[in-house]
Amino acid sequence: MTAVLVNGVFSDSVPAADRAIHYGDGVFETVAIRDGRPELWLQHVNRLRKGCERLGFTAPDPDLLIREAAQLSRNRDRAVLKIIVSRGSGGRGYRAPGEPSPSRILSLHPWPEWPEEYRLRGIRVRICNTRLGCNPQLAGIKHLNRLEQVLARSEWDDSAIAEGLMLDVEDWLVEGTMSNLFMVRNGGLLTPDLSRCGVAGIMRERVMEVARRRGIRCEVGRFAPSELAMAEELFLTNSIIGIWPVYRADTNDYAAPGEITLLLQSDIENTATGLST
Amino acid sequence: MTAVLVNGVFSDSVPAADRAIHYGDGVFETVAIRDGRPELWLQHVNRLRKGCERLGFTAPDPDLLIREAAQLSRNRDRAVLKIIVSRGSGGRGYRAPGEPSPSRILSLHPWPEWPEEYRLRGIRVRICNTRLGCNPQLAGIKHLNRLEQVLARSEWDDSAIAEGLMLDVEDWLVEGTMSNLFMVRNGGLLTPDLSRCGVAGIMRERVMEVARRRGIRCEVGRFAPSELAMAEELFLTNSIIGIWPVYRADTNDYAAPGEITLLLQSDIENTATGLST
Repeated sequence: MTAVLVNGVFSDSVPAADRAIHYGDGVFETVAIRDGRPELWLQHVNRLRKGCERLGFTAPDPDLLIREAAQLSRNRDRAVLKIIVSRGSGGRGYRAPGEPSPSRILSLHPWPEWPEEYRLRGIRVRICNTRLGCNPQLAGIKHLNRLEQVLARSEWDDSAIAEGLMLDVEDWLVEGTMSNLFMVRNGGLLTPDLSRCGVAGIMRERVMEVARRRGIRCEVGRFAPSELAMAEELFLTNSIIGIWPVYRADTNDYAAPGEITLLLQSDIENTATGLST
Repeated sequence: MTAVLVNGVFSDSVPAADRAIHYGDGVFETVAIRDGRPELWLQHVNRLRKGCERLGFTAPDPDLLIREAAQLSRNRDRAVLKIIVSRGSGGRGYRAPGEPSPSRILSLHPWPEWPEEYRLRGIRVRICNTRLGCNPQLAGIKHLNRLEQVLARSEWDDSAIAEGLMLDVEDWLVEGTMSNLFMVRNGGLLTPDLSRCGVAGIMRERVMEVARRRGIRCEVGRFAPSELAMAEELFLTNSIIGIWPVYRADTNDYAAPGEITLLLQSDIENTATGLST
């Protein structure tokens, strides 16, 4: 069973009038819990705040969120904390209430049982047929309108394939269904621009920081799927998986983990604790 | 207070694990209730079924839906019935459960108190800055990912403006935030193509049917906002409002109701009852 706090109260349900249900009118965060503490907390809370701002309402008080997060996750070695913040109930149709009362839905989930090889020896990924629509106004936000990811993830059932890469409607590489994408080429990083669609991941940001410190350049741009063939290494990131090397993407094979991937992975893992508060 | 049936049981809440909350993973219908009966019921149920199919799950049994609809709406002169069908709970992240148990959330709402002039003398509309992203895979479906409509509707607060028109990211006219758009030019109808974004409205379909019967031609295509200036009449449709003439769109003025608008409006209103079962 999953423990859920809805607006601070243990509950297994959400008010039927909540705008998350009706319109996906909110944002979410997926936070790694290790030794009872949320990792990269400030980054998550910061993104949550910015996401709410872009949707036009005020995020809950971070102190309230950390108290509720602690209430759910203390004494848990490893777990996943999901935080949903919606605009709350009310309004008339699409029209939001003048003074929204955002709702908080915090739930604690078991740590996913991914094979340790995914992290150590890499994964195989496919390219999804489902495309991401482009809308700069929503791009980057981890909002609750996630049908494209659901449809993309429904395309395969083969357990040998751990993730799917998604292209936008103009056929540019964007991200994985639940992760961000990096390519290594000539010793530097390439990662898709997220100003038209996609989710600006916390771990993507961390990787770019760590690379900067190492003097590894990182180019953010538009990349066609054909560029996968030119990459020396490939890896995926998110807050829960950290970095997963990719050993095969579609028909392209890679050394996994590659040299740069391994370096960044070890930097990320070694600094994880220091960044968790 | 709103009466809500969640999976057949009166309730004011929805399971916290429901995929409508997490991903907007479902569809909805907004049905006019008159004299205790749902109007255009077959059309609504048909669209619901097609929407679920396109999202990859099976819609609830229509007999079950009509029983629940009747349970909520009998003895009500005029009300709005909202039906949400989601893929239900479960799955791992975006991945849907292999055998989903879709949920049904039926809620009855008061009939909106729109001024009678809207229908009789028309409304004023603006053009929204919020754009619709294009994704043919989701286009036309009345799904639960509605952030674009929420953001568009939040752009104005002036009660003199009843609706906003939305363009797609390539600046083509698509629809209103909660309605479909028709222009009248040279005595024929023009309405935006919805194969890349937008919601294929039940009332839009009805208007096209009624027009066909009257021998009024209807062209579905891509229209730029500049074409608003060339229209002789303009009107908006949805299942609740029926047809609203438009007397002003942005800086363009129209006779409202225009001749063709009035004709279609009267045809729709006269046949409404006959179609309600």
